[in-house]
Amino acid sequence: MSDITRTLTPVYSNKESASRVSGKTEIKIAYIGGGSREWAIKLMTDLALSEHLKGTLELYDIDHNAARHNQILAESVFKHEQALTQFDVAVASSLESALRDADFVIISIEPGPINYRHADLEIPARYGVLQTVGDTTGPGGVMRAMRCATLFEQFGRTIEKVCPQAWVINYTNPMAVCTASLFRGYPDLKAFGCCHEVFGTQEMLAKRVAEWFDVEIPSRTEIKLDISGVNHFTWAASARWQGNDLFPLLDQITSNEELFASKANDALKQAEAKKWFSGHYLIAFDLFRRFGALGAAGDRHLVEFVPWYLSGMAELYRWGVVATPYSWRLERTTGPRKALAEIANQPLASTGEEGVLQMEAILGLRSLTTNINLPNRGQLPGAPKGIVVETYAEFTRNSVRPLLAAQLPAGARLLIDRAVQEQSILSEAMAARSLDLAFQAMLASPLVTIPTDKAYAMFMEMVDETKAMLGEWE
Amino acid sequence: MSDITRTLTPVYSNKESASRVSGKTEIKIAYIGGGSREWAIKLMTDLALSEHLKGTLELYDIDHNAARHNQILAESVFKHEQALTQFDVAVASSLESALRDADFVIISIEPGPINYRHADLEIPARYGVLQTVGDTTGPGGVMRAMRCATLFEQFGRTIEKVCPQAWVINYTNPMAVCTASLFRGYPDLKAFGCCHEVFGTQEMLAKRVAEWFDVEIPSRTEIKLDISGVNHFTWAASARWQGNDLFPLLDQITSNEELFASKANDALKQAEAKKWFSGHYLIAFDLFRRFGALGAAGDRHLVEFVPWYLSGMAELYRWGVVATPYSWRLERTTGPRKALAEIANQPLASTGEEGVLQMEAILGLRSLTTNINLPNRGQLPGAPKGIVVETYAEFTRNSVRPLLAAQLPAGARLLIDRAVQEQSILSEAMAARSLDLAFQAMLASPLVTIPTDKAYAMFMEMVDETKAMLGEWE
Amino acid sequence: MSDITRTLTPVYSNKESASRVSGKTEIKIAYIGGGSREWAIKLMTDLALSEHLKGTLELYDIDHNAARHNQILAESVFKHEQALTQFDVAVASSLESALRDADFVIISIEPGPINYRHADLEIPARYGVLQTVGDTTGPGGVMRAMRCATLFEQFGRTIEKVCPQAWVINYTNPMAVCTASLFRGYPDLKAFGCCHEVFGTQEMLAKRVAEWFDVEIPSRTEIKLDISGVNHFTWAASARWQGNDLFPLLDQITSNEELFASKANDALKQAEAKKWFSGHYLIAFDLFRRFGALGAAGDRHLVEFVPWYLSGMAELYRWGVVATPYSWRLERTTGPRKALAEIANQPLASTGEEGVLQMEAILGLRSLTTNINLPNRGQLPGAPKGIVVETYAEFTRNSVRPLLAAQLPAGARLLIDRAVQEQSILSEAMAARSLDLAFQAMLASPLVTIPTDKAYAMFMEMVDETKAMLGEWE
Amino acid sequence: MSDITRTLTPVYSNKESASRVSGKTEIKIAYIGGGSREWAIKLMTDLALSEHLKGTLELYDIDHNAARHNQILAESVFKHEQALTQFDVAVASSLESALRDADFVIISIEPGPINYRHADLEIPARYGVLQTVGDTTGPGGVMRAMRCATLFEQFGRTIEKVCPQAWVINYTNPMAVCTASLFRGYPDLKAFGCCHEVFGTQEMLAKRVAEWFDVEIPSRTEIKLDISGVNHFTWAASARWQGNDLFPLLDQITSNEELFASKANDALKQAEAKKWFSGHYLIAFDLFRRFGALGAAGDRHLVEFVPWYLSGMAELYRWGVVATPYSWRLERTTGPRKALAEIANQPLASTGEEGVLQMEAILGLRSLTTNINLPNRGQLPGAPKGIVVETYAEFTRNSVRPLLAAQLPAGARLLIDRAVQEQSILSEAMAARSLDLAFQAMLASPLVTIPTDKAYAMFMEMVDETKAMLGEWE
Repeated sequence: MSDITRTLTPVYSNKESASRVSGKTEIKIAYIGGGSREWAIKLMTDLALSEHLKGTLELYDIDHNAARHNQILAESVFKHEQALTQFDVAVASSLESALRDADFVIISIEPGPINYRHADLEIPARYGVLQTVGDTTGPGGVMRAMRCATLFEQFGRTIEKVCPQAWVINYTNPMAVCTASLFRGYPDLKAFGCCHEVFGTQEMLAKRVAEWFDVEIPSRTEIKLDISGVNHFTWAASARWQGNDLFPLLDQITSNEELFASKANDALKQAEAKKWFSGHYLIAFDLFRRFGALGAAGDRHLVEFVPWYLSGMAELYRWGVVATPYSWRLERTTGPRKALAEIANQPLASTGEEGVLQMEAILGLRSLTTNINLPNRGQLPGAPKGIVVETYAEFTRNSVRPLLAAQLPAGARLLIDRAVQEQSILSEAMAARSLDLAFQAMLASPLVTIPTDKAYAMFMEMVDETKAMLGEWE
Repeated sequence: MSDITRTLTPVYSNKESASRVSGKTEIKIAYIGGGSREWAIKLMTDLALSEHLKGTLELYDIDHNAARHNQILAESVFKHEQALTQFDVAVASSLESALRDADFVIISIEPGPINYRHADLEIPARYGVLQTVGDTTGPGGVMRAMRCATLFEQFGRTIEKVCPQAWVINYTNPMAVCTASLFRGYPDLKAFGCCHEVFGTQEMLAKRVAEWFDVEIPSRTEIKLDISGVNHFTWAASARWQGNDLFPLLDQITSNEELFASKANDALKQAEAKKWFSGHYLIAFDLFRRFGALGAAGDRHLVEFVPWYLSGMAELYRWGVVATPYSWRLERTTGPRKALAEIANQPLASTGEEGVLQMEAILGLRSLTTNINLPNRGQLPGAPKGIVVETYAEFTRNSVRPLLAAQLPAGARLLIDRAVQEQSILSEAMAARSLDLAFQAMLASPLVTIPTDKAYAMFMEMVDETKAMLGEWE
Repeated sequence: MSDITRTLTPVYSNKESASRVSGKTEIKIAYIGGGSREWAIKLMTDLALSEHLKGTLELYDIDHNAARHNQILAESVFKHEQALTQFDVAVASSLESALRDADFVIISIEPGPINYRHADLEIPARYGVLQTVGDTTGPGGVMRAMRCATLFEQFGRTIEKVCPQAWVINYTNPMAVCTASLFRGYPDLKAFGCCHEVFGTQEMLAKRVAEWFDVEIPSRTEIKLDISGVNHFTWAASARWQGNDLFPLLDQITSNEELFASKANDALKQAEAKKWFSGHYLIAFDLFRRFGALGAAGDRHLVEFVPWYLSGMAELYRWGVVATPYSWRLERTTGPRKALAEIANQPLASTGEEGVLQMEAILGLRSLTTNINLPNRGQLPGAPKGIVVETYAEFTRNSVRPLLAAQLPAGARLLIDRAVQEQSILSEAMAARSLDLAFQAMLASPLVTIPTDKAYAMFMEMVDETKAMLGEWE
Repeated sequence: MSDITRTLTPVYSNKESASRVSGKTEIKIAYIGGGSREWAIKLMTDLALSEHLKGTLELYDIDHNAARHNQILAESVFKHEQALTQFDVAVASSLESALRDADFVIISIEPGPINYRHADLEIPARYGVLQTVGDTTGPGGVMRAMRCATLFEQFGRTIEKVCPQAWVINYTNPMAVCTASLFRGYPDLKAFGCCHEVFGTQEMLAKRVAEWFDVEIPSRTEIKLDISGVNHFTWAASARWQGNDLFPLLDQITSNEELFASKANDALKQAEAKKWFSGHYLIAFDLFRRFGALGAAGDRHLVEFVPWYLSGMAELYRWGVVATPYSWRLERTTGPRKALAEIANQPLASTGEEGVLQMEAILGLRSLTTNINLPNRGQLPGAPKGIVVETYAEFTRNSVRPLLAAQLPAGARLLIDRAVQEQSILSEAMAARSLDLAFQAMLASPLVTIPTDKAYAMFMEMVDETKAMLGEWE
């Protein structure tokens, strides 16, 4: 175990100091959901490129084979000629054993078999409730949350028991309520949630900056935003590059109606090409022109928090947004896995994710301020205490301290408040395993504008199809 | 002027005491909007039946003729053989003169000519945004609020100048934001807003009580509710009659799906018969079964605060609710007025409104606790300070003190919070005369689920059609 | 059991109605601490004079003989020729049996043997910390609270188990934290705390009114105050009689320095005559002239909440206040008890306490609004939730609803906030049985201005002398 | 003007970038109170040692000669052989001219002639109210605040008019209320307050760390504290060095009663030697052992916020604390000024103050997180909005963002809340120029435990002696 979990040593340990200064700091990471096709490999890649860390990575997944496959891939990663360090990668037989002696715990799970996403996405669609992602809010978000409730309380309980001093990073969606569930009963856990959506907004602005100022596209980290809100529905209260205020420039481009001309054709082509994740940021821009602050997540997430854009696929396409379909999710998860050779033959490039930087900063090895998800202790003024909000935090040695969020315009704040309210009732539902409250949380989504009796039928159909994981709910 | 506005008299005035004890208390009432077809006559009727009051009623309306007509009708009222007291009824030539020496001020105006209601109701309908009333929230509510902003600030200012000690009762909709505008800049005004919607809920329950307990239909005042929320979107946290909890009984009837069988035929007949105000309380009951608290206003109001019932007329009719059409509003207002004889030949019956009871209680002549609208100082826990909320208040001599609202279930509270947020941004818009904020308030209505660009076109059309009254807005 | 604890009866019980209308309502009262020399007799007297109630009173006291003595006295009370009703008075052998079937529970105990008051009062005095009462705040208040912690949690637990629907009235000091302890773990308990200190303020003002207005001394209930604060440190934001504002008149008398001329001689005589409870209200008046609101409790209580008047006995006497000494407390409690004959030979007069009125109002037999102590749900804006505050509440059938407190001037509010903070940390100490927190609560008292090390020695001496009751504390 | 005040330049200025990268950034600093004997010279010294800055420093002081003297001294500083950069130092003839084109404004004034400190310190002493500093709280703090009210509102108004984009650093005491006054009416000002008291706590701990871990005394910046509170009454919720928790070690030393053995002799010697600023940190340690968090300001400040240590000089000395006497303040200010030669002949050493670092960080030239004073927007959870609190803030280019304060133990929080309340009423007094409220603020100080009538006499004496500066107060 590294120093962050050390108990008090009244005399300074020169050995530890030496190891940190001259060499690499040794840590153990437990990865829950370690069979993930995407996230585990990304993490290993960034670890391999760390100048500061070495140690052990222990993968735990209920799909044992998936974890084993990643263990095999690990070899390609850490033996890659560009790798700067070495991690032993093991597969754990139990959650407890993965967590033992962990300095860091990463949680990135899929709650239930992938075909449960059918219930999340396809049943609502049949009732006329469309979703672009369906993992955070609305019918799909509520169902995922219900399936996560028991799991995350178990994760929290086990971490508290086995490695209470470890730092826990959650990547699982619905981010806010899953992270909140970790803390339920264990308020002293050192956990937070992470998401990369804001990076996309920075990158989009970096491209605009290149045009506006006639320079090379700057690094996304040069774009300074004042972020706050809830995960996937964050807003920027300001945007600056090199001290230049970018909002007046955004004002100019969004005042031009042409920017908002129908993108239906683009969207159609995109859908045909199965390019689900690129976008035009028209929703972000539309929120900007209506509310004076910039929506700072991908459009496919933003549209799910307001009632205006998802009345139909045609409407959605008009804004250049496509919905990630269930069919593709199924295909991607059940298709063939990445082969060893694929990794070995490609250059080992930083993924742009921040997990490894965060660990280094918590170990005192670098400075970092970034946006993360934490229970509100006041960092989002006006939001209730305990709600998980996304704001900046300063990472220092063994400490993650939220910054106070900048003030957003009243209209943006109102929309965030509504997402907060929905989260609040969903969290209550999860704590109580209450179907009634879960249904109220679903009704609280602006996507659900069908009559309550039809909504209830839809909800019960979804519950029925996934009931194997909802045994505690009543 | 009566004793409530008296300045300190260091030695007790025996004369005043005598007059109050042995005879009737003399007051002056100023009625702003005194040409109202309905409300002025109702007030005069209740005044005529008062055992405690006498004095002067001064009517002020920008439609001078309408006020004069009511002055003439007053004779029939106060000379009616059942009248118990006498009021001199005058028509004021200016707001100031109406207010001079007033002990009570009643505000009950129509903001603008009746054909402005075309913009409020018909333009949104063309864009697919239906409203049942359109005077409180949604497009119609926002537009009325915009037209009221300058008027109510002027009323507040003039009252502060001319009769700062007078008690002000507002009946005008949108109730909450109009009442709030009165206080803007004059926080010490003794004003509150009144509405009779809760009475309807009590009467509905009284009928149920008669069935359930096999008794005569009790008086509505025997139905004890725990009311709170915002005007037209109040909820009952409990309901009791003679100490009996009525919620388990409501539970029984709303568990029966048959109660919610389609009322489309009834609604159709009702619409044909132009019976706009009766209803089945299915929406109130649906909110009860979904959220565990009873919606305590007419269904035509309740449906405007949630996104579930107003997707189309057919859907609305299914719940037994009809929308009051613009055509009828026009007809009623421009048709022939009530004749003198009509009043003289009918018995003089209490209207069931509470204005006169409230005045008597403020004069110390009776005790009264009832639901009214006041800026929140904490009576609705969790709602921001200053927002106008509807809760109980205890009326005593020269004092109106809110009771703390009972706790509602989380889901009901969430819905009220959203109405509060909408009110908050609408109030800000009114204070700033800001078109941008007014549009944001419109978007904040759950009724507006059309795309933002179409909503903006709709908004600007509405503004354009009523721009004669929106000179200060930009 | 009376109707307030009835479960739902779907058909209205005519029998019950009849009994209530034609005869007296039958109730059972459990009296915890029923050996009290004063309070039990007062309650019995008021019960005997009730036009509405009859039933059973069951006394429970760990001093069984004391309770038996009161049972004997009861005969004199209820057989008194002026008695209007009859109560059977029993002595319970256990808390559970006293509570069984109770409609009302009254708690009025002395926490520990009377000689524990030596620790509360005499040890601090030796350290230079003087107290006038020492039962609410300061060293004595903290020690009493410590001795009450376990007892009141037990009362709460047993009531929850045996008679969860009963209404509980607490008279025990320290009022606020004892009442709070009842609710710990049982937030749905129907309990409140009562105190008569405000009555004294009303009576004092009634006498002033007689002078000011040249009338007979009015009833104290004619003096309308706007009360709020915490028990024994309540303030009036306004005072009115018959609509007359009394504050300008108070202003006149308190502007006169002569009013504040030394009352040392009076106080000395009072102390010699052992008249501990009368007073000049100079402290109430001094708070009024300094802070613009009237201290609304006896001066002996008020002085304990601020650091200005208790630096020595001479200083205290200057303000006409005397401190109730330990010696008298001892003497009163250990002296001979009231004899039967004493009661029979005196007229049976209402005591002026409100317990019986409150019970009648809760039974729906009269209307009542009065000041009581309840956990803050928002009725004292700005004070934390859960703190027990004293404000008005409206009593209706089976319901006690707080009114929102009127706004006090900033300076008065600051002083109340400090008392609230002290209560808050004392409550935390009680919940945790933490000596450290209890000592912090003692330091938080403005009476404790001695150095912390000396204060700690004092505290530990007090703990040591009463340790027999502090077994759970550490 | 530097880039922080630049308005939008749509095309990136290569010139500016170049100048920043290759050379030094040019800024203008306005120094209000520029005749200060100490602070102006300190600032110039740190400026002279800056690797990043050059430009102009304009001094404004109502004592024109004092400013001129500093202008002359500037030559020694900037021509010093160790100086790394150059600043032109000018003396401004008016506040407006000093502020014109300023990028930074520093405010460090003495409110009134030094002999006004006689009223602040000596009059209270005569009434038995002792103060160690008397510039922040208690009688002296209140009087200084009263003298600052008009000045700081004028500073705010003029900055808003002349250089609204400039960053303003206030060093004047009473820090909190002076900084608050700047914002009154100008909430968008970019101002904050700075104080070095926490540095002393870090240095004290650094020395302890050297002992505990047997290492060289580390730099104070290696001591990581979790600071929050109000200026001069800040507390550390935790203390770490190199990841080691220092609180258990503090626990050990403060458990030893010997640490608290009387320091009366030391203090006496210190007083004789006129060493007013060194100390034993016994008060900080005593607060630590009583409340579980470390008082993080000098003892002479800490003792003024609680009622326990200042009952007399002997008591104070026992804790090793000395009071800075009026006589010394007078002497220091009226004695001979520093001579040119003094500076030239000494090495030019960094003062340890952070002003220049803060300016560099605001210019984007370094990263910095430090404790500063800002109006509360939520960074000190539980404290009212607008109160000026001391917490950490992250300095980035043109942005100063507060971090959310760590949670303190309940008892420490209670004491801070009381200081907050005192500040709140004092701020209100300043805004209203109200003698009544100012007196209430004085009574709110725990140092004032004398009877209210004597306190009032004291207050009026102080007002009388300084009335030349209190013309607006009534």
